[in-house]
Amino acid sequence: MRALHYTSARTVDPVDIPTEAPPAGQVQIRVAYTGLCGTDLHVFHGDMDARVERPLVFGHEMSGVIAAVGDGVDEWMPGDRVTVMPLDWDGTCPACRAGNEHICQNLDFIGIDSPGALQELWNVPGSTVVRLPDDLDLREGALVEPVAVAVHDVRRSELAAGDTAVVIGGGPIGVLIASVARHTGADVVVIEPDAGRRGTIEDLGFRTLDPRATDQTAWVEEWTGGAGADVVFEVSGAAAAVRGMTALAKVRGTVVVVAIHSQPREIDLQRVFWRELRLLGARVYQRRDFETAVELLAGGAIPTDTLITDVVPLEKTGDAFAALEAGQALKLLVAVGGDQ
Amino acid sequence: MRALHYTSARTVDPVDIPTEAPPAGQVQIRVAYTGLCGTDLHVFHGDMDARVERPLVFGHEMSGVIAAVGDGVDEWMPGDRVTVMPLDWDGTCPACRAGNEHICQNLDFIGIDSPGALQELWNVPGSTVVRLPDDLDLREGALVEPVAVAVHDVRRSELAAGDTAVVIGGGPIGVLIASVARHTGADVVVIEPDAGRRGTIEDLGFRTLDPRATDQTAWVEEWTGGAGADVVFEVSGAAAAVRGMTALAKVRGTVVVVAIHSQPREIDLQRVFWRELRLLGARVYQRRDFETAVELLAGGAIPTDTLITDVVPLEKTGDAFAALEAGQALKLLVAVGGDQ
Repeated sequence: MRALHYTSARTVDPVDIPTEAPPAGQVQIRVAYTGLCGTDLHVFHGDMDARVERPLVFGHEMSGVIAAVGDGVDEWMPGDRVTVMPLDWDGTCPACRAGNEHICQNLDFIGIDSPGALQELWNVPGSTVVRLPDDLDLREGALVEPVAVAVHDVRRSELAAGDTAVVIGGGPIGVLIASVARHTGADVVVIEPDAGRRGTIEDLGFRTLDPRATDQTAWVEEWTGGAGADVVFEVSGAAAAVRGMTALAKVRGTVVVVAIHSQPREIDLQRVFWRELRLLGARVYQRRDFETAVELLAGGAIPTDTLITDVVPLEKTGDAFAALEAGQALKLLVAVGGDQ
Repeated sequence: MRALHYTSARTVDPVDIPTEAPPAGQVQIRVAYTGLCGTDLHVFHGDMDARVERPLVFGHEMSGVIAAVGDGVDEWMPGDRVTVMPLDWDGTCPACRAGNEHICQNLDFIGIDSPGALQELWNVPGSTVVRLPDDLDLREGALVEPVAVAVHDVRRSELAAGDTAVVIGGGPIGVLIASVARHTGADVVVIEPDAGRRGTIEDLGFRTLDPRATDQTAWVEEWTGGAGADVVFEVSGAAAAVRGMTALAKVRGTVVVVAIHSQPREIDLQRVFWRELRLLGARVYQRRDFETAVELLAGGAIPTDTLITDVVPLEKTGDAFAALEAGQALKLLVAVGGDQ
């Protein structure tokens, strides 16, 4: 079968690899579409070479159809339309024992720490599989994972209907958080320096701010009647955003750290203290977030037409990364098997 | 009457000022003891000259006896033994309207933003007064305010019996937080570089760590069976402590920012994200914290004998600041009127 191998920085190659029957407890999925995300881009850049075993088949945002099931798998059968929650925890570490399996201290993130969805037939534990509705397009099904990230972030923030939310960063996850926040009933503004992205986001009906042209703190204060925002989502990964984010939140407001900051960042702790702010880290998702994500996609709450910028064949994955790097593309899908 | 005037950096002078009868809604307290805290030291250093009106009578940790009451004050009478919760809020800002009066956006912190307790007869709003039990020594009564800070910090952290707590910084507030945490039923370790302070804290029955001699992250991991601490209190104000604090907390653990950091600080946001940590700012207190503080002091849960290093007359306040700067003193009281 065809698969994509990452071997070293900026090198991905389509290859033929043997097919393996699903072992006991696993299912084999015929992959339809696999999305490319920022983490995949980090892998592609070689930034995660110390973590990943190479050659790596990556990819963890996907949709597909069950092709076969291993021994002991009763809940799935060939033909089921599915996606995968790509987390495999050990169940024994202190985090798992405390009920936080999704951030297990020894988490196997499938598609990074073990083989992922850029292959035609993918074997995964049956416990990771999530059902897709019959009428959900498989392209949209490949968005369940990133939507679940946004659902998790918004749920963790405890954002409520009528609240104000600031989303810093208008990439795919920022747009998804804004969409989920709006669906929750919040009033949302997205801060994004790129004019092209701002235009796209405004077309989706969101307010936007250009942080280089607007005093964002004064704007948010005016917008919220002098209070500050109920929730701020830091999705940009930028040092300047972190320096400014605490100034946007109300007294006892919440700042959710969604982006990955590989460097220590300067934070205005005086403001954290003064306003008794709450900063929350938010990582991946739990099964209920996946289930909510499926519902939101099925209900049309997610602007998938805007988000899915292009669908490319497996052989063009390298070119797709170049488009992601250029910063104009939102979500790119690889048609591994395509509709089936 | 005698009072202490702060006029400029490092200059405090005992002066005679006129006595004023308490206006309507206020009470006049004959001040017994006034404690000196880190914020007073900031004032003394001139760091808060842009905020304070000079000459300033500062002081906000105190005990005393009601001397007179103004019109409209029904709940207090001369002879009542009291302390003061030195917060005066506007009641109209967004924070107040949301129920967070204690961190009102226009808070008058009495003793900084308006005259404080280093004067023999002090007029304050009747609403700020808190009753002291008859059998509580007035020296101990002057500790209610800093104990209330610690009670607020611990309450905000949601620390529970059986939890593990790391207190970074073994000054007066660090020792009080450790004491309140222990009273809550938590297992506590205090990280403090000064050997003299560590000795004092160990004499109180706490574990201590010298951060310059011990790998604190490895120690906490071992102590907690690989999990990390439930709650970390950052009370040191040091940049290095902030850089290291996130490594001490368990998955979904809490870090409370108690210290004042006037500079932006570098934080490991990757760890905040990876472990879904919660960082909470904690500032001052609410009335229930004052009431709990009075109960803890009356019940002997606070090591007041160790904490009160010395009691000095009003004329020696300048010297007392020198002792605080030297870092060996814990809590110094000024006997404004003394026992009465």
